[in-house]
Amino acid sequence: MPMPDNQLLDRYAELTVRSGVNIQPGQQLVVTAPLEAAPLARKITEHAYRAGASLVTVLYSDEQATLARFQLAPDDAFDVAPGWLFNGMAEAFKGGAARLALVGEDPALLSEQDPAKVARANKARAVAYRPALEYISGFAINWSIVAFAHPAWARAVFPGVPEGEAVERLWQAIFAVTRTDRPDPVAAWAEHSAELERRAKWLNDGRFSALRYSGPGTDLTLGLADEHKWLAAGGKAKNGVFCIANLPTEEVFTMPHRERVEGTVRSTKPLSYNGTLIDGIRVRLKGGRIVEAFAEKGEETLRSLLATDEGAARLGEVALVPHSSPISQSGLLFQNTLFDENAASHIAVGQAYPDTIAGGGRRPKEELARMGMNESVVHVDWMIGSEEIDIDGVREDGSAVPVMRGGEWAE
Amino acid sequence: MPMPDNQLLDRYAELTVRSGVNIQPGQQLVVTAPLEAAPLARKITEHAYRAGASLVTVLYSDEQATLARFQLAPDDAFDVAPGWLFNGMAEAFKGGAARLALVGEDPALLSEQDPAKVARANKARAVAYRPALEYISGFAINWSIVAFAHPAWARAVFPGVPEGEAVERLWQAIFAVTRTDRPDPVAAWAEHSAELERRAKWLNDGRFSALRYSGPGTDLTLGLADEHKWLAAGGKAKNGVFCIANLPTEEVFTMPHRERVEGTVRSTKPLSYNGTLIDGIRVRLKGGRIVEAFAEKGEETLRSLLATDEGAARLGEVALVPHSSPISQSGLLFQNTLFDENAASHIAVGQAYPDTIAGGGRRPKEELARMGMNESVVHVDWMIGSEEIDIDGVREDGSAVPVMRGGEWAE
Ligand SMILES: [Zn+2]
Ligand SMILES: [Zn+2]
Ligand SMILES: [Zn+2]
Ligand SMILES: [Zn+2]
Repeated sequence: MPMPDNQLLDRYAELTVRSGVNIQPGQQLVVTAPLEAAPLARKITEHAYRAGASLVTVLYSDEQATLARFQLAPDDAFDVAPGWLFNGMAEAFKGGAARLALVGEDPALLSEQDPAKVARANKARAVAYRPALEYISGFAINWSIVAFAHPAWARAVFPGVPEGEAVERLWQAIFAVTRTDRPDPVAAWAEHSAELERRAKWLNDGRFSALRYSGPGTDLTLGLADEHKWLAAGGKAKNGVFCIANLPTEEVFTMPHRERVEGTVRSTKPLSYNGTLIDGIRVRLKGGRIVEAFAEKGEETLRSLLATDEGAARLGEVALVPHSSPISQSGLLFQNTLFDENAASHIAVGQAYPDTIAGGGRRPKEELARMGMNESVVHVDWMIGSEEIDIDGVREDGSAVPVMRGGEWAE
Repeated sequence: MPMPDNQLLDRYAELTVRSGVNIQPGQQLVVTAPLEAAPLARKITEHAYRAGASLVTVLYSDEQATLARFQLAPDDAFDVAPGWLFNGMAEAFKGGAARLALVGEDPALLSEQDPAKVARANKARAVAYRPALEYISGFAINWSIVAFAHPAWARAVFPGVPEGEAVERLWQAIFAVTRTDRPDPVAAWAEHSAELERRAKWLNDGRFSALRYSGPGTDLTLGLADEHKWLAAGGKAKNGVFCIANLPTEEVFTMPHRERVEGTVRSTKPLSYNGTLIDGIRVRLKGGRIVEAFAEKGEETLRSLLATDEGAARLGEVALVPHSSPISQSGLLFQNTLFDENAASHIAVGQAYPDTIAGGGRRPKEELARMGMNESVVHVDWMIGSEEIDIDGVREDGSAVPVMRGGEWAE
């Protein structure tokens, strides 16, 4: 396995620790990572200790073990999840630990497996993970998600290219879109993060009550939650620590109203969901709910996803990303949400972020629900933006303002 | 890295799952393993799913990360331990999960590090692990410990031999002493396990109240706990599952009385304790307590160990192993407790096993303490047997029976 340029990998690890999760002296760090990410996880561990972390714990996962389970375990195994481990993570977050996820996996790992079993395993996992996830979605602690160039992922992104070269090219792409190859990546992210915050402010000042999308196969009016707030991925967690929750990130995002989305929308990029590729999605929403759903590929998995629970067929996030984003400009289909969602405007079904409502973290759940907040054990982003999509911001009084034209910011 | 004969590794994994932990249909399995053990962990995972496990979770550790912490983390980090993770494990055991530890590490990993920091980290870890350990020491669930040939370990066992060859020779040694190279390893272990149980019965029938050790540098009278029970590593856990807690195992063991050990004793093999090698131990016990302690090597670590808590300087286990055991006959110094403790009779400082008192699991702690049971956050075995040691069993009435002569069973 060829390794990326060692100096760049080291800078990437440092960027992750300083600009991404921004670990604080005395803080514990909980990292999740596939086994293949061990070289990066080790460098991150070193930088975290240099920055004063008291303890870094890496929870490794193993795709081969996951696959073996689907091939060999008894049928009733698939409703079981490691709740005890997730409860342990929740305890760590409650105690003030920061969280880092290293992602990058075989996007088609489970594509040959029984979709019903995959759906049951996904649901059991999502339900068991919920207590830990609430610290993340509620932004109680500083956290971040970054990628590493998993060999199977690299092969999927660069089909036909020998694995070693594919891994190298994927690392180059990761270093480019995360600005790791800039002279001062930490400074570059401070600047980019401020730019995204300016864009969020412009949208907040616009006081739109809905967004209207039009384009090929898309005619959607997406109502926004009451007192919704546009945010960028960089922000101050409730523990007072500024972190950038995704590296890379190009989006500004807010909360759709769970009951006020009407029309049809088409996906513009494939979506990799827990080892299954879902492509060519077309859905119709009525009263905020997805009432019709089709996909050219992975339709069964899409339907299972939407049936996970009551909130899985409603929206929890709407995000705007210009078509000229560096990720889109790379011309690559990453088949990984962290990248692809930053190549295009997107929506997510499932759990909403309470912080995308003003004072959301302190309001009771019933009030948040009345204001339009959706709840679910899942949160899955999929891309609906392209250079063919126009978006208007619509105010209460019916007046409309161009927000995006041909996939770019209208102003 | 050369891998061992793939077929033998597979049989070893199967032996571990079937004879060692004896995983039951529907049961979860929690495995701890160093990163380097991933190939074995994967094979074990497969066999566990074949045997009906519902979920196998491998918690990987990374020596490089441990070392980085000692080199880079701030001083006050060393009183911190991942209690949240250990509490998660305890929750898994409470829910009925089985436990497997894959061991094999660099015996000198931390030998260059500040012994005071190492001691603080060991203590913090031991205290945090206690709730999980109680399920193990109380034999509430089926569990087992097996080894894998870690490269740094192999280099320590075969100094001067190139790493690849050292790893191969260590695997061969592991396969030999675990009987993996026999035609039917599972049957061989059933037979061997029955033989150890017969030996335990003979000792129980002897109704000794103390053991008397004599040999070079050793003159020790070791009182046994009231109503103590001799056990072998193979036995039925409280969840009803028969497992063999150590592979290999050659010992029969019981509980010393925490206040009734008098005299001097010398170690006969080095002891590897959390990355530090302790050799040439000489201690004097009075009223069950180690009141003088010396070591030719690692004396500071030995003293820190004994000072961990009140029970760390008293005994929690006494075990008898004939000098002709296969591990002793291999002529190798493994520098790993799992092997070395099965090469010689040994004692352990620290936590006792409640099950080595009749009905121990059901008696209140105060009663167990009165009967002689020791408690501590540590349990560390060290070897005091050799071909030069004689052991007598002494009864209440003062009569004595030869138990071992020249390191072998007297009958
Ligand atoms: Zn998003
Ligand atoms: Zn999202
Ligand atoms: Zn023992
Ligand atoms: Zn022991």
